[in-house]
Amino acid sequence: MRVLYHHALNPGSRKVRLALAEKGLEFELKAEQVWERRQAFLRLNPAGEVPVLIEEDGTVVPGDGVITEYLDEIYPERQLLGETALDRVEVRRLTNWFDRKFAREVSEPLLEEKLLKRLARSGSADSQAIRAANHNIHHHLEYLAWLAERRNWLAGESLSLADLAAAAHLSCVDYLGHVPWDNHPVARDWYARIKSRPIMRALLSDSVPGVPAPAHYADLDF
Amino acid sequence: MRVLYHHALNPGSRKVRLALAEKGLEFELKAEQVWERRQAFLRLNPAGEVPVLIEEDGTVVPGDGVITEYLDEIYPERQLLGETALDRVEVRRLTNWFDRKFAREVSEPLLEEKLLKRLARSGSADSQAIRAANHNIHHHLEYLAWLAERRNWLAGESLSLADLAAAAHLSCVDYLGHVPWDNHPVARDWYARIKSRPIMRALLSDSVPGVPAPAHYADLDF
Repeated sequence: MRVLYHHALNPGSRKVRLALAEKGLEFELKAEQVWERRQAFLRLNPAGEVPVLIEEDGTVVPGDGVITEYLDEIYPERQLLGETALDRVEVRRLTNWFDRKFAREVSEPLLEEKLLKRLARSGSADSQAIRAANHNIHHHLEYLAWLAERRNWLAGESLSLADLAAAAHLSCVDYLGHVPWDNHPVARDWYARIKSRPIMRALLSDSVPGVPAPAHYADLDF
Repeated sequence: MRVLYHHALNPGSRKVRLALAEKGLEFELKAEQVWERRQAFLRLNPAGEVPVLIEEDGTVVPGDGVITEYLDEIYPERQLLGETALDRVEVRRLTNWFDRKFAREVSEPLLEEKLLKRLARSGSADSQAIRAANHNIHHHLEYLAWLAERRNWLAGESLSLADLAAAAHLSCVDYLGHVPWDNHPVARDWYARIKSRPIMRALLSDSVPGVPAPAHYADLDF
């Protein structure tokens, strides 16, 4: 069986879980506490980061961006990057928007301060970093709404990796209770559409010991 | 003529310049001061970041990772990502190593503290961040040497995007005088090999007003 080393609230891991589900590929999850820097895991990925995909033949594919490019090459029946080179420019641009810009400005500081410091027992939360992320998320939800008003899905007519990346990051932040949905109805409509898809079910039933999700997290009518 | 919006000491811009040169594609450089947040530039790339490639037909390709994937698709004669899906896993893994891990731990803090704060006149340098980066670079040069001792180029037998990413980041840090070459002879040998290639010439003659490069920066016998 295909194996995915992951962490429940790691956005890159969630993006790959959604990509595998959307492609109909079966896999087994193995939770990795990356901060323990386990030697056997470092041999799979010297960068020491999740996700890492292990194919049934033993092929090791480390890193969310590497995995999603690999999956579209090897299992092209359901293309997540788009059909043409220009489609792929737009899908990759928006995927990077969430994986780099949204990550840097919103999800990474929130996950670091509210979750990882607690799990790895490494210091107390920086309230200034949390306030900055709470401020920055409004700009991103406005941009998401701007896209969702002009297109069926974020990068065009079809659901693509850009939607999966956005859902991966936003669902992590939502688990921490930091998405101001009430101020952003168009972004909420987009999230409600993706949230109701079967590919999201596993993510919505995730739970991290000691860090309970808010009641609305798994609610399709949030 | 093809146009590349760039900044002389932005590693992503340098990686794309090397990729275009390696593929033999002509282009004109336009320097963009991204901190000025020029409206016409934000319309090309809402993320407000360099590099952005404009093809002769007007196609806009924003972001270094998006551009290098696009270039290998559209101009496949000289493949920089590798010939097989497994080659591409390794090339993308190591490219991400430099663009994400090396960037976060070494080049981004050094460029931010020693260059961008000065150019954008936004505060004084954080000496603790500089010390951390000076410490971290040793680990990366050791990993680079480990790879270079086992392979002809970083990701395998051929020069690939992984070498261009590494050269892009290291040449920026070298411009700032922060690569401890004397302690890392194997990494220096690899850099001497790529430094002597014609594709590096334009980068080695870059100069940023008010921030002169050290004498060894452009020297092939450093």
